[in-house]
Amino acid sequence: MSPVEIHVVPGLPEIRPGDDLAAMIGDCLEKAGLGLRDGDVLTSAHKVVSKAEGQIVRLADVEPSAEALAYAERLAKDARKVEVVLRESVRVVKAFRHPGQNEGTMICEHRLGLISANAAVDESNTGEDGTVILLPRDPDASAERIQQALEQRFGVSIGVMLTDTFGRPWRLGQVNIAIGLAGVPSVKSEKGKTDAYGRRLMVTEPAFADEIAAASGLVVRKAGNTPVTLFRGLEWEKTQSRAAEMLRPAGEDMFR
Amino acid sequence: MSPVEIHVVPGLPEIRPGDDLAAMIGDCLEKAGLGLRDGDVLTSAHKVVSKAEGQIVRLADVEPSAEALAYAERLAKDARKVEVVLRESVRVVKAFRHPGQNEGTMICEHRLGLISANAAVDESNTGEDGTVILLPRDPDASAERIQQALEQRFGVSIGVMLTDTFGRPWRLGQVNIAIGLAGVPSVKSEKGKTDAYGRRLMVTEPAFADEIAAASGLVVRKAGNTPVTLFRGLEWEKTQSRAAEMLRPAGEDMFR
Repeated sequence: MSPVEIHVVPGLPEIRPGDDLAAMIGDCLEKAGLGLRDGDVLTSAHKVVSKAEGQIVRLADVEPSAEALAYAERLAKDARKVEVVLRESVRVVKAFRHPGQNEGTMICEHRLGLISANAAVDESNTGEDGTVILLPRDPDASAERIQQALEQRFGVSIGVMLTDTFGRPWRLGQVNIAIGLAGVPSVKSEKGKTDAYGRRLMVTEPAFADEIAAASGLVVRKAGNTPVTLFRGLEWEKTQSRAAEMLRPAGEDMFR
Repeated sequence: MSPVEIHVVPGLPEIRPGDDLAAMIGDCLEKAGLGLRDGDVLTSAHKVVSKAEGQIVRLADVEPSAEALAYAERLAKDARKVEVVLRESVRVVKAFRHPGQNEGTMICEHRLGLISANAAVDESNTGEDGTVILLPRDPDASAERIQQALEQRFGVSIGVMLTDTFGRPWRLGQVNIAIGLAGVPSVKSEKGKTDAYGRRLMVTEPAFADEIAAASGLVVRKAGNTPVTLFRGLEWEKTQSRAAEMLRPAGEDMFR
C-alpha cells in the first residue's frame, strides 16, 4: 500500500490584501516540483486567506462598547480586542482568567457556529502591529475559489480546506480543525458498515476533514511561516461539503 | 523537503490474550518491507493491546449495581455494560439520551483521567459476542514495552503511541487521540518562540501526539482491521512523556 504523504508547500511570500492567493500557491507548487494530481487535498491556515481578503482590523479604529470595557477590565484584555471579539460572536460561552494567565480567555460562539477562544480573532502573524485578523467571511466559498482556480490551472480534481488552530475543553495543546471545505468530505460515515467481526458499527463517523486538519499541524510550523500543506494519497471521494456540517447541533451540545 | 509519510502496517492477525503483540507488529513491518528507521513513530489502536493484555470482560460475569440499573433504565443501555463503565470511571460527567438515540451516552471521567463516552469501554471489534474491551491498565507502560521490544529487534530509536477514538463536545465525527506514549512528546511547545514577524507566540503548543493520533485515522479503517500505522519523516525529539500530560488540569476545565 502506498503511504499518505504530507508535504509542506514552501515559499509562500507575505500575503497582503488583494493578493491572488490561489495563483501564489500554484506558483509555489510548481517551484517546489510538487504540482497537483487528481485526489490531492490542499490545506491552508485561514490566516493567509483572511489577509488576502482584507479581514484585518486596525485596533486604533475600534471604539469599545460598555460590555467590551467590562470584559476587558475583568480579564485584563485590550478593550478594543474584546470589542472585535464581541462583534464576531453570537454568544460568550465562558469568560475566565486562570491564575498565572496574564490575559484572560473568552470562549465564544463565532457567527459561523465555531466555538473557540476569542472568536478566532488572532493577533499573531498579522504582519502589522496594532492589528488583528478575523476569519474569512465565508470560509467554504474562499476554499472553493482556491480549488477552482487551481483545478483549472493544473487540470486536476482536488480538495481544498481552510484550517484554524483551536484548543480543546479537556486536553492541553492545540490542534488544527477544518473551518472551510471545498470538495473534502466533513466525515466519512461508516454507519451501517460492519466491523472486522461482522458487528455493525452504528456510530463510527471519522471526522475526515478534521483528521486532515490536525495532520497538517505535523508539518506546518507557525514560527516557520508555512501555512499551506499538500496531502497526496488519501482515500476519499469528492463531495459537496460545508464546514458547518461538522458543528454539533445545539440539542446535542452536552454543555448547554 | 521530504514529506511526512503515513503507512498502514498490514497483516496483523486477530489478537488474543497473551499474544506477543510487539513481535507480531515486527513481523508485519518486515513482511511489508517497511522495517523501522530511527525517528519512526508507530501508533496502535489500544484495542489490540487491550486484547493481548486480556482487558476483556464477559458481560455474563457482571453483576449490575443499583446505580448501574438506574442508569441502564434511564438510558436504555445494558445494565451490565453500564456496570463495567461505572467501574472504569471516577465520575459521570453527563448522561443523556438524545431523541433518535437507540441507546444513551454516559460521558465519564476514566480512572486514567480521560473524559470520553462510556469510559472508553468498547464493544466493537471484540472478536467475541457478549464481551467488552477496557483500556489497558497502564497505556504508557504498554506503549513502552512495544517500543523497547521493537527498538531491540530492529536496532533503532523510535516512538510508540496507543490511540483511542473519541468524540468532541462541539464537533461531529470522531478523531483518534493519544492515550499512551513512549518517547513521543505530548505537545511541542512553541512558547517563547517568535512568529514570522518577531511577535512572541505565548500560547502555541501544538498537541503533537494528538496530531499524530488524528492523522492515523486517515489510514486506519475500523472496517478493515488495520490498527497499526507507521509515521516516517516526522520532526521530533525523543522525550520522557506520559499521556497524562495532555489532560487539562481540573482548575482549567471550563466545564466544571
